[in-house]
Amino acid sequence: MTVVIDSFDTAGPGDVDGLTAALHRHEAATIRRLALVVKTEGSAQIDDFSREYAAYQAREVVTRHGGTALLDRTVFLHSTGCEGAMTPFGYLMADLEPGPALVDEPAGPALALGVGRSRPIPGPLIGTVAHAELVEQAVRDAMADAGLTADAVELAVVKTPLVSHDPPAPDAPPARVTSAYAKAVGALGSAVALGEVARERVVPAAFGAELDLYSRRTMVFSSSEAAAVEVLVLGNRAGATGSLRIASGLLADVLDADGVRRVLAAAGAELAGGRVADPSRVAALLVKAGYRHDGALRGARTTVHTSRIDADTHTRATMSGVAGSVLGTGRMFISANSVHQAPDGGGLCVAIVGPAAPEGA
Amino acid sequence: MTVVIDSFDTAGPGDVDGLTAALHRHEAATIRRLALVVKTEGSAQIDDFSREYAAYQAREVVTRHGGTALLDRTVFLHSTGCEGAMTPFGYLMADLEPGPALVDEPAGPALALGVGRSRPIPGPLIGTVAHAELVEQAVRDAMADAGLTADAVELAVVKTPLVSHDPPAPDAPPARVTSAYAKAVGALGSAVALGEVARERVVPAAFGAELDLYSRRTMVFSSSEAAAVEVLVLGNRAGATGSLRIASGLLADVLDADGVRRVLAAAGAELAGGRVADPSRVAALLVKAGYRHDGALRGARTTVHTSRIDADTHTRATMSGVAGSVLGTGRMFISANSVHQAPDGGGLCVAIVGPAAPEGA
Amino acid sequence: MTVVIDSFDTAGPGDVDGLTAALHRHEAATIRRLALVVKTEGSAQIDDFSREYAAYQAREVVTRHGGTALLDRTVFLHSTGCEGAMTPFGYLMADLEPGPALVDEPAGPALALGVGRSRPIPGPLIGTVAHAELVEQAVRDAMADAGLTADAVELAVVKTPLVSHDPPAPDAPPARVTSAYAKAVGALGSAVALGEVARERVVPAAFGAELDLYSRRTMVFSSSEAAAVEVLVLGNRAGATGSLRIASGLLADVLDADGVRRVLAAAGAELAGGRVADPSRVAALLVKAGYRHDGALRGARTTVHTSRIDADTHTRATMSGVAGSVLGTGRMFISANSVHQAPDGGGLCVAIVGPAAPEGA
Amino acid sequence: MTVVIDSFDTAGPGDVDGLTAALHRHEAATIRRLALVVKTEGSAQIDDFSREYAAYQAREVVTRHGGTALLDRTVFLHSTGCEGAMTPFGYLMADLEPGPALVDEPAGPALALGVGRSRPIPGPLIGTVAHAELVEQAVRDAMADAGLTADAVELAVVKTPLVSHDPPAPDAPPARVTSAYAKAVGALGSAVALGEVARERVVPAAFGAELDLYSRRTMVFSSSEAAAVEVLVLGNRAGATGSLRIASGLLADVLDADGVRRVLAAAGAELAGGRVADPSRVAALLVKAGYRHDGALRGARTTVHTSRIDADTHTRATMSGVAGSVLGTGRMFISANSVHQAPDGGGLCVAIVGPAAPEGA
Repeated sequence: MTVVIDSFDTAGPGDVDGLTAALHRHEAATIRRLALVVKTEGSAQIDDFSREYAAYQAREVVTRHGGTALLDRTVFLHSTGCEGAMTPFGYLMADLEPGPALVDEPAGPALALGVGRSRPIPGPLIGTVAHAELVEQAVRDAMADAGLTADAVELAVVKTPLVSHDPPAPDAPPARVTSAYAKAVGALGSAVALGEVARERVVPAAFGAELDLYSRRTMVFSSSEAAAVEVLVLGNRAGATGSLRIASGLLADVLDADGVRRVLAAAGAELAGGRVADPSRVAALLVKAGYRHDGALRGARTTVHTSRIDADTHTRATMSGVAGSVLGTGRMFISANSVHQAPDGGGLCVAIVGPAAPEGA
Repeated sequence: MTVVIDSFDTAGPGDVDGLTAALHRHEAATIRRLALVVKTEGSAQIDDFSREYAAYQAREVVTRHGGTALLDRTVFLHSTGCEGAMTPFGYLMADLEPGPALVDEPAGPALALGVGRSRPIPGPLIGTVAHAELVEQAVRDAMADAGLTADAVELAVVKTPLVSHDPPAPDAPPARVTSAYAKAVGALGSAVALGEVARERVVPAAFGAELDLYSRRTMVFSSSEAAAVEVLVLGNRAGATGSLRIASGLLADVLDADGVRRVLAAAGAELAGGRVADPSRVAALLVKAGYRHDGALRGARTTVHTSRIDADTHTRATMSGVAGSVLGTGRMFISANSVHQAPDGGGLCVAIVGPAAPEGA
Repeated sequence: MTVVIDSFDTAGPGDVDGLTAALHRHEAATIRRLALVVKTEGSAQIDDFSREYAAYQAREVVTRHGGTALLDRTVFLHSTGCEGAMTPFGYLMADLEPGPALVDEPAGPALALGVGRSRPIPGPLIGTVAHAELVEQAVRDAMADAGLTADAVELAVVKTPLVSHDPPAPDAPPARVTSAYAKAVGALGSAVALGEVARERVVPAAFGAELDLYSRRTMVFSSSEAAAVEVLVLGNRAGATGSLRIASGLLADVLDADGVRRVLAAAGAELAGGRVADPSRVAALLVKAGYRHDGALRGARTTVHTSRIDADTHTRATMSGVAGSVLGTGRMFISANSVHQAPDGGGLCVAIVGPAAPEGA
Repeated sequence: MTVVIDSFDTAGPGDVDGLTAALHRHEAATIRRLALVVKTEGSAQIDDFSREYAAYQAREVVTRHGGTALLDRTVFLHSTGCEGAMTPFGYLMADLEPGPALVDEPAGPALALGVGRSRPIPGPLIGTVAHAELVEQAVRDAMADAGLTADAVELAVVKTPLVSHDPPAPDAPPARVTSAYAKAVGALGSAVALGEVARERVVPAAFGAELDLYSRRTMVFSSSEAAAVEVLVLGNRAGATGSLRIASGLLADVLDADGVRRVLAAAGAELAGGRVADPSRVAALLVKAGYRHDGALRGARTTVHTSRIDADTHTRATMSGVAGSVLGTGRMFISANSVHQAPDGGGLCVAIVGPAAPEGA
């Protein structure tokens, strides 16, 4: 099994030309697992349907390529918000059945990939401890699928349903609160699976409140479309074929360019003068970033929580500058709201680096 | 005592030319009470400072005209949001000491005006039952100042401080929740003073939740600048000099043009073909409107709670069309969020009509 | 041939359940022409993809029902923006081959429907006089398809490609200017076909500038997705079977509720107390509205051109109140930017009324 | 003459406590020239009045401290937009008459400051070559006031009136186009004074169009409030007392962290590991940044010109990350739209560094 990563640009959320081309590089039968990690460019506000649109089309592309059998082997991780330096694009991550061409590669510790999926979560369970336990199990399943122990996991990407579709309360549209709560459940359920947080601390009273409770290797996305939890797990596994290596690490805050550099170096990238020497060797850079709940940054007030623009947009745009200035390009996956995925105001950076320019980068 | 109303247009929130001209029509010493009811044109989002700016300048204008003595006799009711058909403008309502020119006017039931003000509300009291009681007392004071019994009150305008300036929780900026909560306190405190709601029902668990609990003659505004409750009360009083009459009534929903017509007719305006025959006779039209908490309107879904634009902006723009098409002009005061000021999704309409075109209209 | 109209609500731009149900009421073979006139609920800003998403799905629904043959007989007129009182919904208008059930209906003047379509417009032609001529021809084709003379047309709906996809100039994103320009071309090309404007006046210098040049029966939509002009024409035709009647008329401004009432009455609706007596008899209400280029409304300043919210959003929300308070529901099609489709600041109102409640309303 | 710089935080655009405290450190009589360079935190959209509000209050503070005489010696450079990592704050730059305490300081090349101001620009001249010539003269006056030759100037800050307040054209609110045009005039007028661009190339046809025509040391701000051009010029002058040094340099694009580092180093700051070693030594960091007119960044598409958020907001937030991660704080002045102030998509960075932590930093 060999994990390969291609990136593809999009001309809009409805554009699947790049995805189709990237997918067609691999015969459906050779794809053991497929993960699409995509940034779409809508407004990321409550009436933005770009993610739903892109995901709908991506499902059609995958189905046309490999039928529902391939669809069942695929996780879709679409995230809206390409502010600032970011370019709208996606990563196609495929775990391929080893073919002859790959047999001779060194079987060192290399990138391994696994996926997991819960049953659809019933409404009454959403946001409860049972929901967190379903996340935990899906992460465990994904680890098993990847052949990774908890220690070897560098990143668990969790997509989880929102708390509810009930009518909003006056002056407080429910989707956002809901989203934060869903993220808390997702992050802490994953943290238990990864051995980072004790299960008994994962209680509703802690969700969104005990900000010192966090996973160190999880990125969570909530989705109004999803009915079940979907998980992608990545890590380095001894014996894995392929030439990619992954590393991850926490960021202190949105200005922590040093943290980004450390993770890139740990994954094998060379840095010079504060920047990546050869960006084409970086197969993927994923960052989850956030601002503190009180909006302070290094002791100074920011306006991210008191602005017509939501804090997540501020976060993505800021971090696109920080990470982009290190990586040297805006083709990277940056997501906001790191609650329970890092200390309050912190973030998570993940880099996957290859020995040479990846195909299609 | 004679109440007169002038309206003045503004070229921007910092423009006080019209206000200054309107104020200078009255010698400071003759002004028993002054109320400025002003619509400013900022974005009405969290980082809109137009109301604060306009109020700052209005205070300077009043102080220059009559010193702090006049300032103490004045209430400032600035409200942001001039969407749709509305024009940015203000009403100057003055209760004048009767001079010789007014002596001969008939002393029939005519518009009377009173103001009330609480002490600054300590932080720990904000949002509590004690806060509501301070509102209740300020409304009672204003009624006494106007010489109106509770039954005779047609409108109580309540401005009340926000709940808190504490840092926002993740994904839920506090200002808006705070604003709704402050409005609940203000509306229900006023409802007790007006004899509309029993005091024992005014408990925090009801705020924003028991939507069948409401005043029928109150409009509430929350203000981040205000430290104390300020109240303006209006009604018809036998023996009052002056030629203005006020009427008020509930609106069923934002499409209730009939309700607007009924109130205008009750205040003495003639209607023909669904419209006011002579808009210049209408000295003031004030509307508080809202959408239901579930966003439904006459059985159909709306997007007002699931849109990048907040529900208040939707409300003001919609009602500007409804009321404006009846009144025949966009020079009217429309405000959103009628929680506890009408049944869920309903509103309040208030009209003040004179026998002839008011000066300066 | 009999025109029938069904309306269907949507739970989101990707929801085609209502459309599917409405379409399945008619066997594909009996549908001579199909027009889908749909309001979607995205932000209507440049990064709103809801219209594209809804149109994509609608094409799939139509194709599944009647193959590409039915697709070729269909026009898709999706428009984003459901602010204020509007509900997200669509009209399915079908011109049916007369079946036995309809034979006995009186063949009076009744609603007739025709469609037209240009060849794809080459880039260099876009925005030129040649573009306007292609619109003109498509409107003529639609009139012939409907069997209507120019005089008998009550409404031509024109969808036309945008001027260009070239990179934006600094500080002036091109899409909106482009949209206005495309609308000018579309409106004036249609006006020539309808005999309202002399062809020699349709020159680029007039587009967006000579605001006294306008069609009185055209609604234009620009579409970044469309490569060709698509036209829907509606009017009353002697000899048409079916029981619907259409009427149209200009509105003086966004507050012209009288104009809305006049058009509804002309189409056969009864009005009482300023409102439609039986909303279920109104098969369709379509309004194109606008504010003056200088933002003035009945002599007063508005903020529609000097607000963070674009003028079109102000327009739709305001008119949703005006028309909704007359119609008694928010299930109506309101669109903004009436440039060249009415005098500056004016609008167009179109009503289709039947003898009894239409099925499914 | 000695230039000193203090920075002061603000709790909102109406908060002048920090400014007042900073100003009161200097007796009015000792202030030869005063420049307030302030970031305010409104939405930076067309209906944001925070800058106007802050400037209004700042004028009152200055007048109270030193009367109209000090007001005449002051330039106000307020700029809205504190997105991302930025904190709302201001620089107070004062050129002080040398007092005894400063006599012993080495008279090396040190920061010098001068101001210039045009007569109010008549409407018909706005946006013409004559407007550019008035800018040129104001920059020359400021250079003379500072005692700097054109070569020694490191930064000219130009505030210039907008083109016009005429009513907007349909679909194209004039303020933004106007702003870009005014900026073109301001940048190119300054470029002539600085000897960077030949006067004959400064013609309206080039404004906003010939993007290879630019100043290398100018930052321009347009202001709807300003009637006259105001200029602040900074540079190092032999013989100047004081301990601050200034350096400036172009940035290649918004990701050019190296460029920021180079300028900081040139002004005397030490860098280690890609960051400033001692941020407290940096008295001021000012950056003007921009995206290319086609939105491309290092060959990849961005959404900055095709997003509900305007390009300037994207720019400020992105650059707040890039510059903030080098400087180590968000207390810095970042402004967007670098048209004619750098090559297309480039920017300008200016750093002022002292030998030790400046007072109050």
